[in-house]
Amino acid sequence: MRASFALEGSDGSARAGRVTTARGSFPTPCFMPVGTRGAVRHLASDDLLKLDAHVVLGNTYHLMLRPGADTVEALGGLHGFTQWDRHMLTDSGGYQIFSLEPKVDDEGATFKSVYDGSTHKLTPESAAHIQGQLGADIQMVLDVCPGLPAPESVLRNAVDTSAAWAARARTAFLDGVTVERQSQFGIVQGGTDIDLRIESTNRTLDIGFDGYAVGGLSVGESQGEMVDALGVVTDLLPADQPRYFMGLGDPVGIVEAVANGVDMFDCVLPTRLARHGTLLTSAGRTNLTRAEFQRSEEPLDPGSPQSPAAAWSKGYLRHLLMVKEPTAARVLTLHNLWWLLRFVDELRQAILDGKFEAFRGHVNDVWS
Amino acid sequence: MRASFALEGSDGSARAGRVTTARGSFPTPCFMPVGTRGAVRHLASDDLLKLDAHVVLGNTYHLMLRPGADTVEALGGLHGFTQWDRHMLTDSGGYQIFSLEPKVDDEGATFKSVYDGSTHKLTPESAAHIQGQLGADIQMVLDVCPGLPAPESVLRNAVDTSAAWAARARTAFLDGVTVERQSQFGIVQGGTDIDLRIESTNRTLDIGFDGYAVGGLSVGESQGEMVDALGVVTDLLPADQPRYFMGLGDPVGIVEAVANGVDMFDCVLPTRLARHGTLLTSAGRTNLTRAEFQRSEEPLDPGSPQSPAAAWSKGYLRHLLMVKEPTAARVLTLHNLWWLLRFVDELRQAILDGKFEAFRGHVNDVWS
Repeated sequence: MRASFALEGSDGSARAGRVTTARGSFPTPCFMPVGTRGAVRHLASDDLLKLDAHVVLGNTYHLMLRPGADTVEALGGLHGFTQWDRHMLTDSGGYQIFSLEPKVDDEGATFKSVYDGSTHKLTPESAAHIQGQLGADIQMVLDVCPGLPAPESVLRNAVDTSAAWAARARTAFLDGVTVERQSQFGIVQGGTDIDLRIESTNRTLDIGFDGYAVGGLSVGESQGEMVDALGVVTDLLPADQPRYFMGLGDPVGIVEAVANGVDMFDCVLPTRLARHGTLLTSAGRTNLTRAEFQRSEEPLDPGSPQSPAAAWSKGYLRHLLMVKEPTAARVLTLHNLWWLLRFVDELRQAILDGKFEAFRGHVNDVWS
Repeated sequence: MRASFALEGSDGSARAGRVTTARGSFPTPCFMPVGTRGAVRHLASDDLLKLDAHVVLGNTYHLMLRPGADTVEALGGLHGFTQWDRHMLTDSGGYQIFSLEPKVDDEGATFKSVYDGSTHKLTPESAAHIQGQLGADIQMVLDVCPGLPAPESVLRNAVDTSAAWAARARTAFLDGVTVERQSQFGIVQGGTDIDLRIESTNRTLDIGFDGYAVGGLSVGESQGEMVDALGVVTDLLPADQPRYFMGLGDPVGIVEAVANGVDMFDCVLPTRLARHGTLLTSAGRTNLTRAEFQRSEEPLDPGSPQSPAAAWSKGYLRHLLMVKEPTAARVLTLHNLWWLLRFVDELRQAILDGKFEAFRGHVNDVWS
């Protein structure tokens, strides 16, 4: 049984719905915390369950190098390995590989391990096979993801190579013996070039996947460019399959992407911000390192009394942060993830209530 | 109401009982986790409550420098600061100060901050005052704690200075306006010199405190020397007051000290071992970094199915440890503290059941 999407309510192009896979289902819009090496930094699976996360990401690049896909498979795949029985999604490793400037040929990408400098080659077929071993519910095709701005020739090449690799990845996935319960998503590239985005969408749709991701955005372009390049893609995507914007996690970005019909999001932003002392709150971002909080008895977000961090004062957590006690990074991570997961819950409810535009306006007022 | 001790059972010199203070009471023998800067590394107060810790330590040296005793006081003392409503104990800062080789004169110790190199002077009076601001239930006198082995002249000087400072600390404590609900413990020094230990005990008893600690042991001497120097002290201590062995946390050390009538223990050992991948288990110490555990599906301690780490495999936690994911340090910290707290519970039960010698023999078999 492959991933599908059922609409439960809409407001303009914004969709509230449910993605169903062989594992079960989860509500959308959905934010997916990132557990790069098999854990969200400072958290374990019991924490993520308490936060009521529905989908967690794993990173193919890191996991294939440490501890190795064979080891993860031997320990029950990512679900058994991490003891998480809700949904998991693995990226293809594409993003990390391309940030390492690999040698790319038609066959695949050759890159060096950040752990020991050893050389590895990832092909569309091996990426599908490795993700089969990792066993997440949703796997992603290997793509070429250029940073922006980029010359048209680079974007053109990324679209062509990604399309050729996507076809091979789909064949390998459908031929795979370990992936009967998995779904596979294609990835649209094309940078901010509207024509290339349309072409990449159509070529990806021609291959046919269980869901569609928008890649290569939120990598340096303006919000306006991002929305324009996104809109032409989602206009072409089928209504009954899930849509995933890769690497987006700021409130305004999420709400604008939802306004353009996106269902799923992931980003390291809330957890990385937490480790550096930046809080997501009902009044916007707050930097906890500011001296004014030294003796503050307020919780991190007075507007979020249900936050898992609500018991402790800003003054206490600021102290732990300033002396680099890991308890601070943990509690702030719990808070930021809790906050963003609740934000997406409220966004979903606004769509169901027909109040999306009011919600969108409020988010832009507070966060822009 | 000052600290007192009520005996609930004994087996030889081993005591099972209860320490009562203005805050309430806790059972003994008791192991107290160390929250140096206001948090046990990787944990918050909710974790310590789930572990059923009864007493947590704070460190005067670190807290007076960051965030400062005034700030802790303004945020409700250590209990309000950390949101912990069970017992807390603060050391005097003596141990850290002397490991920094300060300039010591009759008045006190002048030392440099590890944070910014600034110079601070701690006197018996200021240590009592600062601990009053920190507000823990039990405070310790400022003492001179030499490492072992040490020349007799160094031990003699430590005993003399500690006794003079203890008298001044007691006066300052009893005159203090912020410490009505606190208790103050004296500290016996003397290294492994039996005569000096007896002398230091008597001089500390002459001043009179709410409880008595044995300092300056478990700092390099053999187990036999430690037990000999301890036994002459506990023989002299009153039966109705608590006895605290500072800085001891290995199972054999605890059981041998309990055999000599000690009630309370603290040590960074279980938490520090955890961060380096060494587990306390029912079969002794295990080093999780060993290659044999790479694909182990066993929990950290198959003999401890109730451990808070029991959900995850050695293979998973070893991976997180090897790639330095902080989740590993956290989960291993939870396990080791849980294990040592249960160990002390079982030790207490063995005393109450009149089975202490069998328990002691088993611990020595597994851990020596």
